[in-house]
Amino acid sequence: MNVTNVAIVGASGYTGLELIKILITHPYFNIKYIANSEGQTTLSKLHPSLLGVFECDIQKADVHEIALTCKLAFLALPHKAAMEYVKPLMARGVKVVDLSADYRLTLSVYEKYYSHHTDKKNLKNAVYGLPEINKEKIKKASLVANPGCYPTCSVLGILPFMKHMQKNMPIIIDAKSGVSGAGKKLSEVTHFVNVNENFFAYAPFAHRHAPEIAQVLGFDLKQIYFVPHLVPVSRGMISSIYLHVKGDFDAMEVLREFYKQEKFIRIRRNPVDMKSVAGTHFCDIYVKRDGDILFISSAIDNLLRGASSAAVANANLMMGYEQNLSLPTIAYVP
Amino acid sequence: MNVTNVAIVGASGYTGLELIKILITHPYFNIKYIANSEGQTTLSKLHPSLLGVFECDIQKADVHEIALTCKLAFLALPHKAAMEYVKPLMARGVKVVDLSADYRLTLSVYEKYYSHHTDKKNLKNAVYGLPEINKEKIKKASLVANPGCYPTCSVLGILPFMKHMQKNMPIIIDAKSGVSGAGKKLSEVTHFVNVNENFFAYAPFAHRHAPEIAQVLGFDLKQIYFVPHLVPVSRGMISSIYLHVKGDFDAMEVLREFYKQEKFIRIRRNPVDMKSVAGTHFCDIYVKRDGDILFISSAIDNLLRGASSAAVANANLMMGYEQNLSLPTIAYVP
Amino acid sequence: MNVTNVAIVGASGYTGLELIKILITHPYFNIKYIANSEGQTTLSKLHPSLLGVFECDIQKADVHEIALTCKLAFLALPHKAAMEYVKPLMARGVKVVDLSADYRLTLSVYEKYYSHHTDKKNLKNAVYGLPEINKEKIKKASLVANPGCYPTCSVLGILPFMKHMQKNMPIIIDAKSGVSGAGKKLSEVTHFVNVNENFFAYAPFAHRHAPEIAQVLGFDLKQIYFVPHLVPVSRGMISSIYLHVKGDFDAMEVLREFYKQEKFIRIRRNPVDMKSVAGTHFCDIYVKRDGDILFISSAIDNLLRGASSAAVANANLMMGYEQNLSLPTIAYVP
Amino acid sequence: MNVTNVAIVGASGYTGLELIKILITHPYFNIKYIANSEGQTTLSKLHPSLLGVFECDIQKADVHEIALTCKLAFLALPHKAAMEYVKPLMARGVKVVDLSADYRLTLSVYEKYYSHHTDKKNLKNAVYGLPEINKEKIKKASLVANPGCYPTCSVLGILPFMKHMQKNMPIIIDAKSGVSGAGKKLSEVTHFVNVNENFFAYAPFAHRHAPEIAQVLGFDLKQIYFVPHLVPVSRGMISSIYLHVKGDFDAMEVLREFYKQEKFIRIRRNPVDMKSVAGTHFCDIYVKRDGDILFISSAIDNLLRGASSAAVANANLMMGYEQNLSLPTIAYVP
Repeated sequence: MNVTNVAIVGASGYTGLELIKILITHPYFNIKYIANSEGQTTLSKLHPSLLGVFECDIQKADVHEIALTCKLAFLALPHKAAMEYVKPLMARGVKVVDLSADYRLTLSVYEKYYSHHTDKKNLKNAVYGLPEINKEKIKKASLVANPGCYPTCSVLGILPFMKHMQKNMPIIIDAKSGVSGAGKKLSEVTHFVNVNENFFAYAPFAHRHAPEIAQVLGFDLKQIYFVPHLVPVSRGMISSIYLHVKGDFDAMEVLREFYKQEKFIRIRRNPVDMKSVAGTHFCDIYVKRDGDILFISSAIDNLLRGASSAAVANANLMMGYEQNLSLPTIAYVP
Repeated sequence: MNVTNVAIVGASGYTGLELIKILITHPYFNIKYIANSEGQTTLSKLHPSLLGVFECDIQKADVHEIALTCKLAFLALPHKAAMEYVKPLMARGVKVVDLSADYRLTLSVYEKYYSHHTDKKNLKNAVYGLPEINKEKIKKASLVANPGCYPTCSVLGILPFMKHMQKNMPIIIDAKSGVSGAGKKLSEVTHFVNVNENFFAYAPFAHRHAPEIAQVLGFDLKQIYFVPHLVPVSRGMISSIYLHVKGDFDAMEVLREFYKQEKFIRIRRNPVDMKSVAGTHFCDIYVKRDGDILFISSAIDNLLRGASSAAVANANLMMGYEQNLSLPTIAYVP
Repeated sequence: MNVTNVAIVGASGYTGLELIKILITHPYFNIKYIANSEGQTTLSKLHPSLLGVFECDIQKADVHEIALTCKLAFLALPHKAAMEYVKPLMARGVKVVDLSADYRLTLSVYEKYYSHHTDKKNLKNAVYGLPEINKEKIKKASLVANPGCYPTCSVLGILPFMKHMQKNMPIIIDAKSGVSGAGKKLSEVTHFVNVNENFFAYAPFAHRHAPEIAQVLGFDLKQIYFVPHLVPVSRGMISSIYLHVKGDFDAMEVLREFYKQEKFIRIRRNPVDMKSVAGTHFCDIYVKRDGDILFISSAIDNLLRGASSAAVANANLMMGYEQNLSLPTIAYVP
Repeated sequence: MNVTNVAIVGASGYTGLELIKILITHPYFNIKYIANSEGQTTLSKLHPSLLGVFECDIQKADVHEIALTCKLAFLALPHKAAMEYVKPLMARGVKVVDLSADYRLTLSVYEKYYSHHTDKKNLKNAVYGLPEINKEKIKKASLVANPGCYPTCSVLGILPFMKHMQKNMPIIIDAKSGVSGAGKKLSEVTHFVNVNENFFAYAPFAHRHAPEIAQVLGFDLKQIYFVPHLVPVSRGMISSIYLHVKGDFDAMEVLREFYKQEKFIRIRRNPVDMKSVAGTHFCDIYVKRDGDILFISSAIDNLLRGASSAAVANANLMMGYEQNLSLPTIAYVP
């Protein structure tokens, strides 16, 4: 198999670090270029835990340099910043996996929930990078919009039950995320003393991942009732989903059948937990029905299946490699 | 005001300790008798954090001794064990606040979800100790069944909106508890390594607090969809409640109006958090409506408002004292 | 007893909050004035956990206003900022308990480890506020410098053994603090993800509390080997102290004898723990000797005995009240 | 390179799980046999996080079966239980890496600190498995005693400075371990509520790892002052070591020079932290000198470098593979 040189732009943050950790051991992706907004440092200075593991210079991000040496770039940047790079990279023929929200939504939805979009052309051609839905499209895509963490966790739980749902009934998603989901930036909400020994909802019915979930599943946003909560753990995410369903079906069986081909989705007989997926690309799902209500509990690592390992899966498909190549499987247990 | 001698039976556990911590500074309740199942120790040996604060002998629980010296007994015992004490204490004229589940439910519900009941006579006369519902009855009661933690947290959130709810629609309660809710007993689920950096649901649609919630609110159990989760914190509880509502009303205003007399219920403009109520008798409530769905977030300290401070409030009422006397107000913040 | 009106300047931080929490229930201190650097808010907006407990306006700190209404001011400000207030407050006859480092050290030591001192006159007259050493002086003082948290925790452990120590041998203090010790300010070191599931030393042999310990105990700084560590808990502090001792003595007995009058120092037969003192003014001490080395383990709540409850003890003495009046005794256990 | 079939006896515990996680991806060790004391289950039932990663039956441990199929066995058993297996395995020609304490100490020391030894013959021939000291002996050994976690962490910090130490002066080791060090067994000390938000010393001057440290370094036990503490994290270990040194030397340079060949020892310019080594075989070391005292801070993952990855390194050497083959390098950061 041919080796592909890749660039990582946005190496300072958590998802940048996770990308590097995966790609270090990838048999075909060769990390050729790592950049952040300042450059002039080294990887082990930026991420001391990588000292003695992998070393390279950190560049100040430069589109021209990337295009000279790399076929594919991972962008681990904030929304708005990402589109500044996508446009010129695409123009130079570099394939892109964008971890930001910039190419996930239709124009009108994006501009309503995020901000003005300055790259409408590429937005039109971007593919939403959830292989469970778009596998064939991703294989042919030049630009893949990597899904948000909450949408990944929630959509994977809901998808198998789409045809069993009652029409027009509310879809309630009570989601919980570890603190790394808030990023490396300093804020009240990431101060240890505020989070530790605490638990709370934030942005109830107002989080920007709700319209993403609605769009991916083809629902009206009004049907999605999404409330995220912060859990005092570093990583992990669980969506507790409540659906109104109808008809006679064995929920566990539906789940097993739907995902029987998916190595990285594990159907659980007992409620899922965050720790068993932390450090991995797995999505663990549990389901229980009571009357017309279905309870689905879906767990992922927010930084991996919810960001960086999902990005590598997409890149694998885009470059013709096996989808699951080099995705992490060993959980942070105990 | 007259001083009342009280007994605490079940001093070893967390709720026993919390009772003692409150009663130490109570102006009218005098701790006369503290017992556990073994006796022959002292309070500071049982609870070293109380060394130098309050000291007394721990007795092996003896109903006769209690009746000789105390007018009221707090029972902080497991269910089933509690009824063994209630019967003889009542027979001897000692008032009882029972923190177990033994007298909370109707006979048939109790026997379905717990076990055989051997004190049907007192069960009939027991009053459910939620002053927001039963204040006047509690004042006259000889036996008060102290509510469960999840029911307290959930019922206080739902009560104000009873008349705004759509009939026969599911009531979804996605609840979260700190680990002290599982008690002092050693178990897989309380091992640090299993809980730390983790989060999971347990007993979905099958927890024994669901029938208690249904009974208190007068709903069919089939309407209540209750899923508790374990949060890696020592104490605190949040119920995220989703109700189908109808008609035009200002949810925040309904909440304020309903609880305007209640010093220990705080209406919050922002989502509630566990830490601001930990260490206190407060119940903090937040509400947000979106279309026909109402999101209510209700927070308590599971060991206080969910157990021991609620028990003291009940005892205050039973002895003719002011309901809120000596209830803790200062949270474990920061 | 006469009531004393007091001011708290620096209400935004953790020690300001702890001061307020204690003074709310103090029988003789009346909180007359609370200020931070901006003003124009209320206490419950600044500290939402106090909603429904105590309410008042937060002022923009004004020395003139304080002097008009208050006899004593608590300054919970950063070093350097404190001296700006001490000077004019003293000039107006307001007694001061200063929680900063500004008046703890001799001029030369202060200027070496902190910065230029602009209030040398008051510095000369300030009393170091450790009642175990300076009780009588504190009673007569107008300005008390409240000790640092690490010095309090360490000095209380070492004091009883001063005459048993070998001359000129190193005093090793391996100290551990919860994260609230780093304050409310946002920084890498207080980001949840950096602290959680982590543990590390910082500023080894270079922390500014080392010269304070040396000065209080009358040692040469060269003898003090002080290494603080950060523990992933919100509050609590332990000093593990290793002393070279000589002669024949029963270490536990020396400890008991030395502190037999001190209600808030508890001698422990088993190693002390952070949690049993969190929320209280207690200092718990354990000692064990092996050959010529004495291991002392001393635990305090860094925000209370290490700051705010110590400040109230000092204020009690300064105003002629009983030293231990209203100091917190009930730990955050369980 | 030839593949070696190996057995893991004691698969239920944390170190058993870590062994499996490493060996799954090892190019030459083939997991042929996994056993615990009951058998009759599967790996994914025992360790649900491995579902979909690696599956096999769990046997009831049987020496005869092991000898039939495996050349080497890892014993992840409690002390005393291990020697019951070592004897018959050695008799059948199976090489053994024993993770217990049974073969680490001389007979007299073992019997003083642990219990009666029933396999004196093999004890005599066992090699202490610290490659930094015994690399050549390990290569030829049939039985390797895998070092304790505290001894590994402490000895690696002290070794480089042996010739710079003052004679007969105390060696103070203030060590800190995550809770997984206490194992999977249920106990007061591993109950979440007792450990969370807490920190304490245990077994000061009385831990059984102290004689192991003394023996490995060739010191009199009386010189070693060892105090372990429990940190509220799941994994990680730090030894803060204080040595009396003499002469003129650059401590950092000594450290670098001593370990210049060791890929898995990282010299740090800043104090080490637990998280940067968690999940890896690395030992991170930092040193700072002040006068005649040297502060060494040494960090490992207690379950990996302190147990299971160290065992794999030993097995690598015993079978003629490269010492560092397949040892984990990627830390649990963020």
